[in-house]
Amino acid sequence: MGYEEFTIEGRNAVLEAYRAGRPIDKLFILDGCQDGPIMSIKREAKKADSLIKYVSKERLDQMSETGKHQGVIAYAAAYTYAEVEEVLKAAKDKGEPPFVFLLDNIEDPHNLGAIIRTANLAGAHGVIIPKNRAVGLTATVARTSAGALNYTPVARVTNLAQTIEELKKEGLWFVCADMDGTVMYDLDLKGPIGLVIGSEGEGVGRLVKEKCDMVASIPMRGNIDSLNASVAAGVLAYEIVRQRRP
Amino acid sequence: MGYEEFTIEGRNAVLEAYRAGRPIDKLFILDGCQDGPIMSIKREAKKADSLIKYVSKERLDQMSETGKHQGVIAYAAAYTYAEVEEVLKAAKDKGEPPFVFLLDNIEDPHNLGAIIRTANLAGAHGVIIPKNRAVGLTATVARTSAGALNYTPVARVTNLAQTIEELKKEGLWFVCADMDGTVMYDLDLKGPIGLVIGSEGEGVGRLVKEKCDMVASIPMRGNIDSLNASVAAGVLAYEIVRQRRP
Repeated sequence: MGYEEFTIEGRNAVLEAYRAGRPIDKLFILDGCQDGPIMSIKREAKKADSLIKYVSKERLDQMSETGKHQGVIAYAAAYTYAEVEEVLKAAKDKGEPPFVFLLDNIEDPHNLGAIIRTANLAGAHGVIIPKNRAVGLTATVARTSAGALNYTPVARVTNLAQTIEELKKEGLWFVCADMDGTVMYDLDLKGPIGLVIGSEGEGVGRLVKEKCDMVASIPMRGNIDSLNASVAAGVLAYEIVRQRRP
Repeated sequence: MGYEEFTIEGRNAVLEAYRAGRPIDKLFILDGCQDGPIMSIKREAKKADSLIKYVSKERLDQMSETGKHQGVIAYAAAYTYAEVEEVLKAAKDKGEPPFVFLLDNIEDPHNLGAIIRTANLAGAHGVIIPKNRAVGLTATVARTSAGALNYTPVARVTNLAQTIEELKKEGLWFVCADMDGTVMYDLDLKGPIGLVIGSEGEGVGRLVKEKCDMVASIPMRGNIDSLNASVAAGVLAYEIVRQRRP
């Protein structure tokens, strides 16, 4: 994505960006807006020496990509993608067995943002997404990640199946979610692990699934087919959290 | 918001909708308007227990799609609501201890849809939402529920805290999610249970939280504040599923 102007929209997302030390070039605030969250953002902006511009609602609406700016838009450098090595290094630095999310073609930016948010809170060391077809780190993804993009590295790879092969050499085991798998409670998910989440429509692709060591199923006690992709990712991630706790 | 397809505008159309027994979630009336037809609509609205909001002409103009609202716009529900009793009956019919979701002011239709989807797959017997402020069963909710709305009853109540009191008499225990609670793995969530999920911005309201028997926390191992509401609901619901399995 390079170093280009990038918009961050919404109060939480902007505040988190400042607190994470991200360089913000320009900050646009709704003229006359004086409430608590906006004042917090302004304090951070002054500390960070950002240029502040007070603009009309019309202007903000026009600039907004998400339609949900909540009176504040920041221009920052693009979220740069991490390398897979940085994800492994994050685990090593913390002295923890690696815990990585791999997303097989998530297309909905809200789902991608929610999954990065979950990865952060479940203590995963990073997220790996494919270059092709899947959604990238857009403004909507940044906003729905609720600041997690500032902390959790996201790496982008050409071939997910090949990346799985390489990470196996680093000692990782891979588990993907599918209905025909073993109930997740009965799997051992404690070691260095890669959690593979399939796309909204098609699940995990055949080539990727073949590379996985385990197939986990979430118990389905209802009438419909499948959970929302970000909910399924959360349920599986927290089964890993549960099994890993001391 | 996805209400589009279900917006009813104009005096005759709204009155007819009421007389035909169509469930109306919210009724917007021009502030100060007191003439005969409007008074008839208000009488029907009270009978039907719709939420009435008095708004400015500018607001109505903005909401209007036809430009001919005549001082009144109604938002109709895409689905009909169930009664709380039906939710309990669903549990009884299956011979299972009741498992109910209660949503304290979820505002995002995508989250509501995803949560109803989760409720269905986690084997919950129904979902209870408040009439005020929260989003109702719009077309977007129906779509994101992925069909779950056809199976999982959704009841709407005036006062969530009061409904909790009533359900306690039926033997239910209530657990809500909050950061200062007991780690969910250490709670006993096996019996007849109501799972209370807070709104996206503010979590569970004070009055509702005070009624809860248990406060559960999801372990947070990251840098940001909270999971997406529908992901949090999924993680908690599946902890209940795990504890309940034979």
